Formats: sequence, structure tokens, C-alpha cells
Amino acid sequence: MDVDIGNALDSVATPGVPRSYLERLDGRVADAHERIAAGMADGEFGHAALNLPETCDPGAIRAAVEPLADAETVLTVGIGGSALGAATLTDALADGDAHYLDNVDPAHTEDLLDSLDLESTAVNVVSRSGTTAETLANFLVVREAYEAAGVDWTERTLVTTGEDGNLRELADAHGLPALDVPSGVPGRFSVLSTVGLAPAAILGVDVEGVLAGARAERDSLAGSLFETPAYAYGALAYALDERGASANVMMPYHESMETYAEWYAQLHAESLGKDGLGQTPVRALGATDQHSQLQLYRAGPNDKVVTFVRARETPDVAIPSADLDGLDYLDGATLGGLRDAEFEATEASLADVGLPTLRVEIERADAESLGGLLYGMEAATVLAGELYDVETFVQPAVEWGKEVARGILRGEEALPEKETLRVARE
Amino acid sequence: MDVDIGNALDSVATPGVPRSYLERLDGRVADAHERIAAGMADGEFGHAALNLPETCDPGAIRAAVEPLADAETVLTVGIGGSALGAATLTDALADGDAHYLDNVDPAHTEDLLDSLDLESTAVNVVSRSGTTAETLANFLVVREAYEAAGVDWTERTLVTTGEDGNLRELADAHGLPALDVPSGVPGRFSVLSTVGLAPAAILGVDVEGVLAGARAERDSLAGSLFETPAYAYGALAYALDERGASANVMMPYHESMETYAEWYAQLHAESLGKDGLGQTPVRALGATDQHSQLQLYRAGPNDKVVTFVRARETPDVAIPSADLDGLDYLDGATLGGLRDAEFEATEASLADVGLPTLRVEIERADAESLGGLLYGMEAATVLAGELYDVETFVQPAVEWGKEVARGILRGEEALPEKETLRVARE
Repeated sequence: MDVDIGNALDSVATPGVPRSYLERLDGRVADAHERIAAGMADGEFGHAALNLPETCDPGAIRAAVEPLADAETVLTVGIGGSALGAATLTDALADGDAHYLDNVDPAHTEDLLDSLDLESTAVNVVSRSGTTAETLANFLVVREAYEAAGVDWTERTLVTTGEDGNLRELADAHGLPALDVPSGVPGRFSVLSTVGLAPAAILGVDVEGVLAGARAERDSLAGSLFETPAYAYGALAYALDERGASANVMMPYHESMETYAEWYAQLHAESLGKDGLGQTPVRALGATDQHSQLQLYRAGPNDKVVTFVRARETPDVAIPSADLDGLDYLDGATLGGLRDAEFEATEASLADVGLPTLRVEIERADAESLGGLLYGMEAATVLAGELYDVETFVQPAVEWGKEVARGILRGEEALPEKETLRVARE
Repeated sequence: MDVDIGNALDSVATPGVPRSYLERLDGRVADAHERIAAGMADGEFGHAALNLPETCDPGAIRAAVEPLADAETVLTVGIGGSALGAATLTDALADGDAHYLDNVDPAHTEDLLDSLDLESTAVNVVSRSGTTAETLANFLVVREAYEAAGVDWTERTLVTTGEDGNLRELADAHGLPALDVPSGVPGRFSVLSTVGLAPAAILGVDVEGVLAGARAERDSLAGSLFETPAYAYGALAYALDERGASANVMMPYHESMETYAEWYAQLHAESLGKDGLGQTPVRALGATDQHSQLQLYRAGPNDKVVTFVRARETPDVAIPSADLDGLDYLDGATLGGLRDAEFEATEASLADVGLPTLRVEIERADAESLGGLLYGMEAATVLAGELYDVETFVQPAVEWGKEVARGILRGEEALPEKETLRVARE
């Protein structure tokens, strides 16, 4: 990926970052890069994710999913990092039908199962521990649906899990194809592993290309933000937050990359949201959100940075000429040309009011470019974690609620008393 | 809808609102209600939206869509308010297949058209002016696809537009069924009109029920936030923003309401994002985002308010008992029970750290309850606009970029010079 940080400099934006500050910050980036490189070399927890382009074996994934190669549909049962990376890849790259049970919602689970032809659907159940409540609950319901439909679920199920635990035992007991969740890799950093790649592989995505693109991005990591696009992105997000950009808007200009923005929102929020720090990630989509959020971005508080993402080369479609008035500017135009004009005009319209923006570009919306982008944003996040000085790879704050929810289900008095002031309709 | 504001009081949250302040604010709410009621009585621009439960005629919608009643799929071509309200209703309530071309993306438009059986697809093109660039460009491409497939588009197309303009002339020339965009109603407030209801009506949604629910909510509007759920919501969002909650997270706990959160984000951002004011709306989804955003909400900066939304009664699905270890707490549980336990635990986990939250509840995830919720959030936004003292119903900041984009397409030198500092891979 390439990053243009021009519109985030203080010559354009408020908040904006002075070039002189960036030159000083670059010393901290060099130190952070040394720590990151050392962590990678030692395969440390979390840093191991940045080695996945080398350590992930696409051949093992292809071999494990081979019994499911005839599936037309893949239903992944997982939540959070066990679903979002895979969904990012299949939504952007797969032609086939990928579905995700990544919520606990009876109506949705039932409707989705009713709509699927289970005979031609592969199930991919993903949980490192084998005890994730939402995932296991959904999987039990899915298994029952297969039984009710007279389809042998053991012929249709792939398990992606840790070395031991419930799902591993289940796989062993029934001889299911099984993949290992990589060790030392938090869920939100697992897109370039078995967790992210298996559903894509079943649906024919070029997973080798994804890894090759990530490898090229990894090879670009160097000790300066002025030489490393990923570090330029991470350093600018940090420096803008320091100056008041408390929201971080991720706005790809490709419908197929809508899920990428959601993936980034998890990566950013769960990695950096701690110790009272962390920007609020906001998912957006160009050009659609020009008709929804742009009014706020341009005329609201200057408390955000907007990241525009686009592929430089995409397929295009000519706009047929029309017998309609007032559309002269569409004469001879294409949908891609219109999109690009709006991309540049929207970027300029925020520069015009001094809202900081960053421009991220990839070559194409293909496997290699997307692999590079995903790796780059992971490296950007790890760098930002070093600059914030937080523990990037843990997520302790989600445990409290999980414990209370389990207590409620066990019938214990787990909930503290709630302050209530209810306003109801007469 | 009902609103519980207990967890946003300063006895729980920081930022939080003192009860004594709310009592003083209630005087401003009473004044604002008088202005809103007067605006409604006079059918003023914008306020006319709050009269739609009375002024919108579902019979006229049903009559107009009757020629398309056999369609299995509805493809709406529109952007922003011309798509989001309709998508909110069809995603939540329709069994049939609704698609939206609400972006300008050649790959997506082409893929979607390739995947549809045009013979059984109704096209609903929506633009008040008939010159919206993205919508008209897509419509021209859609029309050509029908011609290429040998399907008569004039037999399959519904037009929803203003009294005159391109699309009106097209409808007249070809005898197309046509509906009027209501006058005095900005796009983001048009869900309870022809614009939002027509695609839902084609797909068999109980649009009369949606309007009845909205009417009941309208009848609840009174001059006090302590008596009016909609005003309680709008006043608290405003009062929390004043105290530092610069992000507004809308988090329904139903997969079918994911689009509702997107609709709300447009309503809120475009109505209140002006004069340097306005919270940043953030779309979220429970329980999924507990595994993505909760770490940040609980451990990051206290600069946000989270709104939890749920229906009190929903269908449920039993979780089959399992032969798996560590899942004792799921014994005898249901997917709905698990979801509700997580809802309450997550709410408690944010109260535990003093992050302000609001709880919005509706009876069911059905037409009437959803109609009430949508109307309530519109009234909440209008009330907040009065408290912020901004012009709620206009969106002047989006014009600059539109003009520049048109200039680029015309080949003019429309873009100002851009500051560039590009970091590229070696």
C-alpha cells in the first residue's frame, strides 16, 4: 500500500501535524521498529502475527479443505476475529456464497439456516478455546439443523481451533478435517492464517496471492515512517489523535471493501482502546456516505481523521448516454470515472475546511493488493501501540461482561443493581 | 419506544447528567416542543416529516406498486436518504429479496446485475431532482441491462421523484407507475413516506402497521422529556455531548436492525453536524461488536455514549444440549436468553466503568414497533436540533464537493492544488 499524508500536515489541517514533529517522531518510530523486529524474530505473542506471511502454509489449508471443495456455500460459525478477517477476504475476493453466523440472534440463525441448501453448504466452525458461548451455541443449532435435514454434518464440517479443547475433541471423535489456530496470534490479527484463509480457499480465492501481497508489505518494514507506508499510517493516526482527532474514519471507495472497514475497526479498537486511550474507529463507505456523513465531516467539529482508501486500477462500466436534461457532465463518463471524481472532490472538500485526511492506495482490488493492505494495517496498529505504549495484543476489558453473562445464565444474582429512570409512552 | 436514561445520570456515569440539570433543561424542551408543534401545524419545511404518519397515504403506494406485485426482487436505485430508509424497513421486515444500488461502483453494479433475474425484478428509481449523479448513472446502466436481456424495462420500473424534472418526464413519456416524493421532507426524514415505504410494500411488508406505530409515537409527543421517550433520547444525547460524549454509538441487538443503525447515523450526522457541532455517530451491532468494540468502550476514553436497542419479545430457538465440556451455563438455555444475558451484562459492564449508556426498548421487532422507533428517533433529532440551535433540515456542506466532482467530469481544472507527502513501498 501507499500512503499520502499531505492532507494531514499542519499546513493543510487543524488538527494537523508539523513536518518538524514528524521528523522527531521518526526517532521513536525507529526504536519501535527495532522492538517490533525483535518481537518478530523471537516469535513473541502478538508479534507472531506479523510472521504469518512466512509461517502460514497455504498448502495445509488447501489439503484440509479439499473434502469440502464441492461446496457452493460456506457457513462460518465464529465471532469477532474468528469471523471478520475471513469475511473481509470472501466479501472482497470470492465469487461464491459466504455466510457468517457471527452473532447470537435466534431469528437470524433460523432464517439463515432455512435459506441454505445444507447439502451443498460447508460449515466452518472457528473458536480457539472451543468454549466461545455464541459460537458453540450457534454450532449446536446448526448441527441439529443438519440432522433434521437428513444431511450428515460430519461430512460437511471443518473445525478451526486450538491444540486441545472441545472442538479438537469433536474433530478427533468424528474424523473431521481440522486446522490449527496459529499460536501467539490474537483473533483480530488472524486474517492471514488458517482462521482468515480457510473459507476463502474453499470458495476458490487465491490465498497464495493474499500471502504474497502480505509478504511484500512485510519486506517494506524499515525504521522510518518516511520509508514505510504502514508506519506512516500508524504514526499519523497516533499523532493526529494526540492533537484531537479522537475519531478515525475508515472510508474505502469500493463496495467490496465495506467489510474491510469493519475488520479495521476491530483491529484498531481492540488493540489500542485501553488505559483511557484509543481513537473511536468509524466505518464508512465511499461514495455512499458522502450522502450521509460528509455534512458532519465538513461542517462539524474538527475531531476526526478520515482515511480514504482506493484501488488505482479497477474494472469499469460505461454510462450509456441519456436523453435526460441536466446530465451533460455524465456524457461519455464511466461509473469508475464518476467514482474517482467524487473521491478526489470529497478529499479536496475536507482539505478545504482543514479536516485532516489520509489517502491509502493499492494497485488493484485483488488478492495481492488486499493482502498487502491487511498486513500494512496490522503493522500500522502494532506501531501505534508502541507509540501509545499500550499492550496491543490483549483485550482484558471484555472479560467482566462475559463472566456476568455466564452468571445470569446459571441463575446467579450476577448483575449489580441498576440505576433506572425510564421514560415510557403513555 | 421506551427510553431508560438511568445509566446516563451523573450518579453512574462520567460524563453524566445531573437530575437537577435535566429539570432545568426540561424548560428548554417545553419551548422546543412548542416550536416543533407549531412547525408541524404549519407543515413547515422539515417539520412536515413529523406529519407523515397522517399525510402519507399507504393506499396510494399500494395502488402504484400494484403492477409490480408479482416481482420477487426489488432493486432500488437511489443514494443516501433515497435508499437508507427503505433498506431499514426491508432488511428488518421483508421476507423477499431487496437490493440497493446506493453507490457508484462499476464492479458492484455489474456483479449485482449479473446475479439478478431481471424478468422477476422490479426497479425502483428514487431521486427528488432526477439529476442525482450516482442514481441516474446507475439507472442508465440498469436500463441498458434490461434491454440487453430482452426484458422491457418500462414494464418493470417504478419512479419515485418530485413534481417535475427528468424522472417525472421519463415516467410520463413511458407511462411508468410513479410516486411523489413528499414536499417539505428532506431525504433522511423520508422513511415514513413513499420513498421508504414503496419497496417494502412491493415485498409484502405491513406498511400500514409501520405508519400506525409512527402515529402512536407522534401522539406521545408532549412538552417534557420526562413524559416523551423521543425527547428524553434527544435531550440526553445533547446533554451528554455538551459534557464530552463526542461519539454516539447506536447498537441494536438484532441482526435485522443493523441497517437501522446506519439510517440513524445518517439522520443524526446530516441533521446535527453543522456550525462546528454534532456528535460522530458510530454504527454497532450487539452481540457481535462485544467482540470488536467493547474493549475500547470499557477501557478507552470516556468520550462516547452507547445506545443499546432491543425488542422485548422475539422468537427464540433452544440451544440443543451438548456432549461438550465447559458449556454447563448453556444447559437449557436459548439463543434469545444468551443474547439477553449478554445485553444486560454488557450494559452493566459499561455502567461499572462509568461510561454513559441509554437503553431503548421496543415491544417487538415488527412493523408497528419499528415505525414507532423510526418516528421517535426523528423527533429526537428534531428536538436535539432545537437544543443545539442549528438548522436541522439542510445539508449545505455537501454541495462544495458535488460541484467540484462535476467540474472534474467536465474536464475543467476544478481541483485546488493538493499538498502531497507520499510514502510508497520501495
